[in-house]
Amino acid sequence: MSLPRIAVDAMGGDEGVRVMIEGAALARRRHERFKFLLVGDEARIKQALEHHPNLRAASEILHAPEAVAGDEKPTQALRRARTTSMGLAIDAVKRGEAGAAVSGGNTGALMAMAKLALRTMPGIDRPALAALVPTLGDNDLVMLDLGANTECDARNLFQFAIMGAAYARIVNGLESPRVRLLNIGTEETKGTENLRDAATLLKDATALALTFDGFTEADKLPRGDFDVAVTDGFSGNIALKAMEGAARFVGDLLRRSFSSSLRSKVGFLISKPATELLKHHLDPNNHNGAIFLGLNGVVVKSHGSASAMGVANAVAVTARLIEENLIERIAADIAAVDPDTIRQPSRRKAATQEGETAL
Amino acid sequence: MSLPRIAVDAMGGDEGVRVMIEGAALARRRHERFKFLLVGDEARIKQALEHHPNLRAASEILHAPEAVAGDEKPTQALRRARTTSMGLAIDAVKRGEAGAAVSGGNTGALMAMAKLALRTMPGIDRPALAALVPTLGDNDLVMLDLGANTECDARNLFQFAIMGAAYARIVNGLESPRVRLLNIGTEETKGTENLRDAATLLKDATALALTFDGFTEADKLPRGDFDVAVTDGFSGNIALKAMEGAARFVGDLLRRSFSSSLRSKVGFLISKPATELLKHHLDPNNHNGAIFLGLNGVVVKSHGSASAMGVANAVAVTARLIEENLIERIAADIAAVDPDTIRQPSRRKAATQEGETAL
Repeated sequence: MSLPRIAVDAMGGDEGVRVMIEGAALARRRHERFKFLLVGDEARIKQALEHHPNLRAASEILHAPEAVAGDEKPTQALRRARTTSMGLAIDAVKRGEAGAAVSGGNTGALMAMAKLALRTMPGIDRPALAALVPTLGDNDLVMLDLGANTECDARNLFQFAIMGAAYARIVNGLESPRVRLLNIGTEETKGTENLRDAATLLKDATALALTFDGFTEADKLPRGDFDVAVTDGFSGNIALKAMEGAARFVGDLLRRSFSSSLRSKVGFLISKPATELLKHHLDPNNHNGAIFLGLNGVVVKSHGSASAMGVANAVAVTARLIEENLIERIAADIAAVDPDTIRQPSRRKAATQEGETAL
Repeated sequence: MSLPRIAVDAMGGDEGVRVMIEGAALARRRHERFKFLLVGDEARIKQALEHHPNLRAASEILHAPEAVAGDEKPTQALRRARTTSMGLAIDAVKRGEAGAAVSGGNTGALMAMAKLALRTMPGIDRPALAALVPTLGDNDLVMLDLGANTECDARNLFQFAIMGAAYARIVNGLESPRVRLLNIGTEETKGTENLRDAATLLKDATALALTFDGFTEADKLPRGDFDVAVTDGFSGNIALKAMEGAARFVGDLLRRSFSSSLRSKVGFLISKPATELLKHHLDPNNHNGAIFLGLNGVVVKSHGSASAMGVANAVAVTARLIEENLIERIAADIAAVDPDTIRQPSRRKAATQEGETAL
């Protein structure tokens, strides 16, 4: 059986068609079995494909007359689901014509469209946005939710843990990923009631293919001591962006320091391999591809400013999730849990779904 | 009139008496007008003072038979307020025998003791923990709350903004500090209801000596584009620690990179002044001293692992806050606001006070 195709929203991303097609071509060169459904303006896609005969041979084009704008409200984008490249790429997943969709477009719109078209999986109340964060350890850290759900109750967090662990098992090849809840202290009494309740649920769910490892503080996220960090979308977005901002801040300081004197400049030139290594580690393109977990289908968000290499990485992650049957794995994990634990959302503190957060 | 004294909890901090006394001595050397009340084990303080005759001449010792433990529960520490160095240092502020207190001990205990002894200021519902964060701009960023209040309503955030702006006016010499609310997007519709309500309160409060500048995302915190970042204690703690963790992560990567080859090692040695400059910028000792704002008295928390130089910086900040009448300034700002806006806490979403967060 041939590998299911990946639908690529060719119009998404800050640079549009060229980068998305170049990224797909790069991914195709590395993994020859990939097939593609390229969704967007047919003329422009054809033009971009002229430079990539290999990709052209493995692709079909699906014309979309419109594209979702970067600043478009999700509610507005939803009304154009049948005419936009983003909407049609997701629709291809729904109709089984593609195994997954990748888009570099508007995160909120992508989330809203994916949710409406693909629906959440049985046993999951809210989908979550998960990404890979670089660490000092051997593996990237899976972190979720990163902004899809502003407020979450204990059951949402519990479900995120199950989905995040399934994702970590696939991308990092782990048997029982170590899962921690993001909190402002590690003692059991710390944080909100929702966090403490989620900890209790996770402690009791011993049938799951994950190792619950308690709370973590935010400074431990990049240490590589555990594999999955679970949090509500508000805190997750704050933590991820704070780390991005601090890494950029240190990089800027470093640049300033190195240009502060001739001696420093010389030192910089000599140690360039070292700083290049650092740059490679911190380049978001090497960790590109945030995934919406909890839907009946795989939808991956490539960073809007990703390079062709970044897009290729997002496409490679997507292919891996199809090959390794992510959705089926999550479904099996949910089936392993007592339905009463996972199904009934606590009404007292229901989740607020926003889905309008740009990453 | 002589400058009011600073009460120093000599037993706080991971290294105890020696570092606290050495820090006070350093501060005293730089600012000769300072007077001190050194609180703790009299014999050990006397011994430490033997190396610092300058400090001895400017100090009085207040014997405290006990010390608060680093892992002691705030409720437990409260019961020993009359016998511990932390409790007696705060008590000295209450009785007017010192203008402010500095401690490197248990944050939760310090918060609980300070609140009970000094009480919150009229018009303030909850005190908040504020700290200075390094930026690429000319000034450090004032950030609050950093963990004293796990959940906050709109009025809490509004009051934090007033207190943070007063603090920024003093430490950074600004007339009308630019204040932003930490959120997961900058559009008006983003985030929680509490954040949106707080934004409305701040927009309407035009009589205040601050410029409300909307929402900020966490990656913008170190850019130096604004002066005060206001947030609830949960998100603030997550953001601050995420930044600390990321900065350390980059530093660790840099070290690894520089030791990856002989060439890199040579480059590192040559560019040492540059990396030293970076280290200086990122050294938490240069930004030491988190302050509890909103109490009828100044209480400053020095980082538990601060060096003598770090303690000296915390003491210097403390002295500046006394000299510049921080409490009176906050009181004047509160008086400038319509009492209905600031006083009545919204009952619908009351704040949860934790005060057990270690920084």
